[in-house]
Amino acid sequence: MMNGTDRFGVIMAGGRGTRFWPLSTSAKPKQFLELLPGGTMLQLTADRLAGVCGRDNIMVVAGREHGGLVLDQLPWLDEENLLLEPVGRNTAPCIGWAASVLAERGQAEATMLVMASDHRIHPVEEFARTSGVAVSAAESGYLVTMGITPTHPATGYGYLEKGAEISEGVFRVKSFREKPDPDTARRFLETGTYLWNSGMFVWKVSGILKAIGKHMPGLLEGLAGLAGCTRPDRDTFSALPALSVDVGIMEKAGNVVVVPASFQWSDIGDWPGAREAGVSRGETVLVDSENTLVYDATGRLTVIMGLRNVSVVCTDTATLVMADSCAQKLREVSEKISEC
Amino acid sequence: MMNGTDRFGVIMAGGRGTRFWPLSTSAKPKQFLELLPGGTMLQLTADRLAGVCGRDNIMVVAGREHGGLVLDQLPWLDEENLLLEPVGRNTAPCIGWAASVLAERGQAEATMLVMASDHRIHPVEEFARTSGVAVSAAESGYLVTMGITPTHPATGYGYLEKGAEISEGVFRVKSFREKPDPDTARRFLETGTYLWNSGMFVWKVSGILKAIGKHMPGLLEGLAGLAGCTRPDRDTFSALPALSVDVGIMEKAGNVVVVPASFQWSDIGDWPGAREAGVSRGETVLVDSENTLVYDATGRLTVIMGLRNVSVVCTDTATLVMADSCAQKLREVSEKISEC
Repeated sequence: MMNGTDRFGVIMAGGRGTRFWPLSTSAKPKQFLELLPGGTMLQLTADRLAGVCGRDNIMVVAGREHGGLVLDQLPWLDEENLLLEPVGRNTAPCIGWAASVLAERGQAEATMLVMASDHRIHPVEEFARTSGVAVSAAESGYLVTMGITPTHPATGYGYLEKGAEISEGVFRVKSFREKPDPDTARRFLETGTYLWNSGMFVWKVSGILKAIGKHMPGLLEGLAGLAGCTRPDRDTFSALPALSVDVGIMEKAGNVVVVPASFQWSDIGDWPGAREAGVSRGETVLVDSENTLVYDATGRLTVIMGLRNVSVVCTDTATLVMADSCAQKLREVSEKISEC
Repeated sequence: MMNGTDRFGVIMAGGRGTRFWPLSTSAKPKQFLELLPGGTMLQLTADRLAGVCGRDNIMVVAGREHGGLVLDQLPWLDEENLLLEPVGRNTAPCIGWAASVLAERGQAEATMLVMASDHRIHPVEEFARTSGVAVSAAESGYLVTMGITPTHPATGYGYLEKGAEISEGVFRVKSFREKPDPDTARRFLETGTYLWNSGMFVWKVSGILKAIGKHMPGLLEGLAGLAGCTRPDRDTFSALPALSVDVGIMEKAGNVVVVPASFQWSDIGDWPGAREAGVSRGETVLVDSENTLVYDATGRLTVIMGLRNVSVVCTDTATLVMADSCAQKLREVSEKISEC
């Protein structure tokens, strides 16, 4: 399985999300926060990936304004392995760019593992195991996505329909499905043939570039213009077509397979999701309360009385008390507040 | 009406309550907090009373441990007008003590207005008006209580049943009623003849001492032992019978009258009560929320999303998020926390 071609890890750390306000801000988005024990989301992701491909082979794509933060948190990262986006252009340009930089460096035949910088994955050993299966399939020429066995009828994720098993633990992808309505999500869960689309991919550098050439020729052209540059200017980068790799490539390509992950996964998409992932900080006393999340960045005591399904988040500058039912509105609210 | 006998104001500031945790603590109970604009509850009470009897005639009874706080907040207060309880013994000893100190100072024929240090009264002009009526009745020899016209069927207050009007705005008290159940409270409200027992009293110094001698002779004896001392020792003070003046005197005395107040009144008994009284601090953003109280002592922004009937209180050391339904439990919870 491990046949010796180089492996590279590409961490997509370009998120500017404010769904974790007041803890996250545009100056410090979720991937730079220490939500879980052991490090920031970025650090945990890098450590996990380093176990598969080694630190020297890790590449981080981040927003230009966050370059300093990345180097602070990953002081071992070579600056030439830090790709700074002058503006966010979704995942296809980000991934294509990383692939083209690797190709420029003579790594066209290497495999690359692509993943978000802000997901929770546990345990690390199972991540390494699943990655091994995925790398092996990628080396055979497939575009591999890691699929997550659903634990509940989530409506916030895209789904993959599993097809035939082509080798142990590797399945064809019959179809990609957008975020489903609750009824569809329940059906997906019951059939057992649908997996969550985690946004983690493995493929050969040459394989993804070829697929981009076929399905997003405009992107490949634009990437040629970057010529391996890791600090592109805004105008050049802005010209790249802003599509997700799922929509732009994966849904169209024929050689897509899925490796069901053996690890637990959460994208920790909002505060209620953070609660499910075990996020918590600060001393807490609950009275007649349940299903609460407390994150007090300032280390104070928090007492919750008579409430359920709420998140309480305190920082030096603000306090958020939010019913789960409002989690989807937080981004909008926090953006309005930031404007003031 | 104003016939020139001296008037004294006695402020009962002995509360050790922790129903306003985390803002209030045993080191700084509610009367010392700035819940409303313009000063702490004690300062507002003193200012209001000063308008009726003058600053020089104000006497404060407080817990020994809070003597420094009282003088900090009322720097004009003569130390000999500060009576320090070594231990709380309810209102009858507190009031009797203040009366005996005034008598020792040759003020047996003066009237004294007795009130809690931590109630909200508005507007001040109406307080002065009601006080004038009450003082006049007190000078005629009555034990006067100020009654509050109920605005809702409160179950947290005692009630007074109004009897015959003996002079303009002065009524006999037919009966005292303990805190009623909700049905009884509704009936009290409908009949229109019941008033809330506010715990504000006016009487002549000699009048209350005479009533104490008749209904609580043990207390009068104990007070004689204090001999006008304003810093009694713990053993002497602990020996005084710990009864409320309502139970010990007012419910038994025959010459009790009530003056219905023309002012708005609230005892601000808990955080939901504070909300009704308009207490609020810190910038607040509400999203899909209503009937909330925010008090951020640290001046941060508070955002509440998707909640109603909650109080959010932040200090340097703790955050409380409490449903109204739990307000009665806060004292117990805060005491447990303080023990840790």
